[in-house]
Amino acid sequence: MSPKITVELLRQLRQAMKNSKYITEPIQAYIVPSGDAHQSEYIAPCDRRREFICGFNGSAGTAIVTEQHAALWTDGRYFLQASQQMDNNWTLMKMGLKETPSQEDWLISVLPENSKVGVDPWIIAADQWKNMSKALSNAGHSLVAVQDNLIDAIWEDRPPRPSTKLITLGLKYAGLTWQDKVTALRGKMAERKISWFVVTALDEIAWLFNLRGSDIEYNPVFFAYAIIGISSIKLFVDSKRLLHPAVREHLELDSPSKPELTIQCFSYESVYTELQAVCVALAPKEKMWICDKASCALTQVIPMAHRSAIPYTPLCLAKAVKNPTEIQGMKMAHIKDAVALCELFAWLEKEIPKGKVTEISVADKAEELRSQQKDFVGLSFPTISSVGPNGAIIHYRPLPETNRTLSLNEVYLIDSGAQYLDGTTDVTRTVHFGTPSDYEKECFTYVLKGHIAVSAAVFPNGTKGHLLDSFARASLWDSGLDYLHGTGHGVGCFLNVHEGPCGISYKTFADEPLEAGMIVSDEPGYYEDGSFGIRLENVVLVIPAKTKYNYRNRGSLTFEPLTLVPIQLKMINTDLLTQKERDWVNDYHRKCRETVGAELERQARKSWSLSALLVDIFHSLLLL
Amino acid sequence: MSPKITVELLRQLRQAMKNSKYITEPIQAYIVPSGDAHQSEYIAPCDRRREFICGFNGSAGTAIVTEQHAALWTDGRYFLQASQQMDNNWTLMKMGLKETPSQEDWLISVLPENSKVGVDPWIIAADQWKNMSKALSNAGHSLVAVQDNLIDAIWEDRPPRPSTKLITLGLKYAGLTWQDKVTALRGKMAERKISWFVVTALDEIAWLFNLRGSDIEYNPVFFAYAIIGISSIKLFVDSKRLLHPAVREHLELDSPSKPELTIQCFSYESVYTELQAVCVALAPKEKMWICDKASCALTQVIPMAHRSAIPYTPLCLAKAVKNPTEIQGMKMAHIKDAVALCELFAWLEKEIPKGKVTEISVADKAEELRSQQKDFVGLSFPTISSVGPNGAIIHYRPLPETNRTLSLNEVYLIDSGAQYLDGTTDVTRTVHFGTPSDYEKECFTYVLKGHIAVSAAVFPNGTKGHLLDSFARASLWDSGLDYLHGTGHGVGCFLNVHEGPCGISYKTFADEPLEAGMIVSDEPGYYEDGSFGIRLENVVLVIPAKTKYNYRNRGSLTFEPLTLVPIQLKMINTDLLTQKERDWVNDYHRKCRETVGAELERQARKSWSLSALLVDIFHSLLLL
Repeated sequence: MSPKITVELLRQLRQAMKNSKYITEPIQAYIVPSGDAHQSEYIAPCDRRREFICGFNGSAGTAIVTEQHAALWTDGRYFLQASQQMDNNWTLMKMGLKETPSQEDWLISVLPENSKVGVDPWIIAADQWKNMSKALSNAGHSLVAVQDNLIDAIWEDRPPRPSTKLITLGLKYAGLTWQDKVTALRGKMAERKISWFVVTALDEIAWLFNLRGSDIEYNPVFFAYAIIGISSIKLFVDSKRLLHPAVREHLELDSPSKPELTIQCFSYESVYTELQAVCVALAPKEKMWICDKASCALTQVIPMAHRSAIPYTPLCLAKAVKNPTEIQGMKMAHIKDAVALCELFAWLEKEIPKGKVTEISVADKAEELRSQQKDFVGLSFPTISSVGPNGAIIHYRPLPETNRTLSLNEVYLIDSGAQYLDGTTDVTRTVHFGTPSDYEKECFTYVLKGHIAVSAAVFPNGTKGHLLDSFARASLWDSGLDYLHGTGHGVGCFLNVHEGPCGISYKTFADEPLEAGMIVSDEPGYYEDGSFGIRLENVVLVIPAKTKYNYRNRGSLTFEPLTLVPIQLKMINTDLLTQKERDWVNDYHRKCRETVGAELERQARKSWSLSALLVDIFHSLLLL
Repeated sequence: MSPKITVELLRQLRQAMKNSKYITEPIQAYIVPSGDAHQSEYIAPCDRRREFICGFNGSAGTAIVTEQHAALWTDGRYFLQASQQMDNNWTLMKMGLKETPSQEDWLISVLPENSKVGVDPWIIAADQWKNMSKALSNAGHSLVAVQDNLIDAIWEDRPPRPSTKLITLGLKYAGLTWQDKVTALRGKMAERKISWFVVTALDEIAWLFNLRGSDIEYNPVFFAYAIIGISSIKLFVDSKRLLHPAVREHLELDSPSKPELTIQCFSYESVYTELQAVCVALAPKEKMWICDKASCALTQVIPMAHRSAIPYTPLCLAKAVKNPTEIQGMKMAHIKDAVALCELFAWLEKEIPKGKVTEISVADKAEELRSQQKDFVGLSFPTISSVGPNGAIIHYRPLPETNRTLSLNEVYLIDSGAQYLDGTTDVTRTVHFGTPSDYEKECFTYVLKGHIAVSAAVFPNGTKGHLLDSFARASLWDSGLDYLHGTGHGVGCFLNVHEGPCGISYKTFADEPLEAGMIVSDEPGYYEDGSFGIRLENVVLVIPAKTKYNYRNRGSLTFEPLTLVPIQLKMINTDLLTQKERDWVNDYHRKCRETVGAELERQARKSWSLSALLVDIFHSLLLL
């Protein structure tokens, strides 16, 4: 991976920062956030402005360019990758390390007095704007909204915004009609005396209307906004997409069943002016919900007196608690996904000794095997297929120039997932096709212990996921080890593989409590820079737990693994496991064998029986 | 415990809320916070306004009175106590339960449109003011500062503000001179380009100047403010207190060694006008630190452009990391405290069968035994001495009308501590002098497992204490049990028994990372309303941990128990412990025996040898 050369780009950007064509007064710094106008984590090529300016293409990171400096902030998952993708013009700011300044502190330390810091108000979230603006003003500077995006100004061959075909999801997949969802949402609005709700997150719009798109790779969403009133629905989307009869019928565009369920359609770009029009007509006491992570530009349209900014929207929460149809779909998707991965492992064992299997070819093979499964739509994120030292790059994606060959001598880590019409998967396995070293086994076993500690945890209703994060680390910590990423994220159902408002991470505090029906990942890891990476990830469903007692009738919760892919036994140092942990592994493998075994047989795909990795597990020998 | 009758008081307060003698316009609600003008947790009798109006005397709680309603918010420690101390005019708002509205939401739900909500700006913290004010304005109401305190207006026999004798602490106890501390503080100020720091927390002032007082029961502090400049020191304290030669000499009032270490003394009340004077003279870029928990009244004196509000002051942090002299003092204080408690347990075993030992008499006996130890100053908080069902009242304090007799049939919980010149103690033991039930033992053992999980935890440098909270709960959670309070708080050194900025609690997020030299409590519990309470508390010192590996050279930390009081073996169901946990208990008791045994012998106080509770531990039989 060679770094992007940015000398010329930075020169052009710095010129634009002084160019009266774009801005009334010169700015001394320009912030390039990671997201798009919807604060999406994964973004369309036309929105990859931060990557364009610095070269770093990870999913999280903010670039700031001043007259003298250029710096990029990203988190522990990306330290190695960012340092490899950026040239010497850039300083890497490692978030989460004590010595790393915050963006605000750094700006204050490098800016001349009374500086202006610019940012595109469409791609900075309202809450970030507020914090940044306050910190800068306190230090005598100011944050200014630059309406023309300065990256777009210097980006010659910037791709157009995509507008892909929409997929309609019927009750079979969605479990609830969009009309039911709108009605339930209005119930929540009425409870809090809210008359309007501006929906800006793409996955919330997709979930609400039971529609999917493919505007953003891996995330089955489409560019749109929605404004939901107590008796009206405004949808902002490229009008071409609404021409298809199936979509028109699904949305009842031509024959709405009820007046309050009639969708008014507008162009994507007209959300600003339409929102202005709605705001002008508001009665004095009317309140409008908007997420505090929505864009600064759109948020500021709503007068303060009418604005109710919320950290998580009711749609975000409703979407997170899967309904029975969605849970059933997610289970089925994970069984199909496990079939594909078991076939992959069998194929790997056969092919690796031939010396021609590479990180990229495994990723391709995994995609091919998944694509043979029913209702496959695409991958849910770029496959992380990494051998040896590449495994230590937490969000590694193999490229021709970094591509390593799998061998019998190195640890192999594969973190991959798919979108099926019935659900989204995300699974990581770390395996060795030769003989792992004692140290690799020791580290793997600590990670496994952490994975089990979370997966088997019992905790009261109302517990927030971040309170479980340390369980995943305790075994590593005991030996002086750790990993610099969170333990888990919410997972959508045929939607984004990362979603809020729940998760398992020491970094958050304002996550919503876990409740039965939520789905999160459980993925502790350990990474030794330049040597190997280990991660073990299952997607797990929050379910009620049976406990001996029931303090204050609160009830308890625990997790049920949805991912059913065997864990390689030879990576485990059994001596380090307690009896309970061995039982967990054995029970898990028993379930894999029963469920995935049955599906393998149903599909009459028997290649798993050739795999040494799987044969013990699938042929009744439970080793631990 | 009979509730306070508040009909007449509420009538008077509601009159005052409309009386133009105190306020220009009538207010529709009046907030009575818990603290004093320094946001102290423990307060002097003259500041017990919330207790005066509602009867509830716990350490945390906010009362709000409207024209129609009166409500009190408090947390899980006090649900039972508050419900017993308040009459029917009051609604108890149980904080932390899902159905309980926040103060803001409740006010908005009960107030008529455009209401004014009043509060004394001296006893509400600036950050609380800000949040409350914002929430009320968003709903069309307003928060107004009522300069005359309305409780004081109706409180006929309100006691005067205390002004006790000051104690000076030499190097032997403090480890650093106040001059060194001021110089170090100025170093921190210079680092952040801060020219003034308004010190409002009483324990910070006491720590900075190596002075102690007894203005507030249990907390060796004195009413004062300080304003520290880069070259000046302003101390605001009742001038009578500075007449004593030892104090004058200690503060170098008559012959300052250096101009920048000269203390200018002002009356306590003049802080407002002096701060105004300092602010008027500020240069344009000058910045002034004030804690965001300081009073709204004082904070608002500082113009926004000059104000740098910080969540924790550098003094708070410096005070939390004990120096070697303080650590040595804390260790010694805990050994002496253990001697007193061992004697207490021996006395209890002898006396209980006689049927005359009560909760109050044990508390008195404990104080008597502690007072015989060297450098004893007083208790560090009211002794919680509770039998059977009283143990479930988490911050119970025995009163004549609730006083129960200790017997061989009920669990006894004692949570107590003392102030010694060399340190502060805080210890809880739960014991049974007859035969505990299997259920009591089971619950005790879960609590013990939680205590050990925290005490033996190894975690990376930089870890915040709240990340350890779940370790204390995991065993309880597994059985469907829990406790509704945090697991630990910072402990001062001959200072407040509760101090920031570190602690171990799921409720906080903004705590400062733990570092070697910090001292916190480790006190999980379990409470069965109407039946019994269990808590096991040691004060523990954060120390470096030796680990097998050292990821990214971050280093690891763990805890060393300072409290050395045996844990009653008969309360433990050994079958529920792992071998590691048994080893921990045995190692702990070995240390108790060696350290406290030696001190008992040195003091030639042998009553411990008579105690069945202690004899096994002190006579070499380690049972587990």
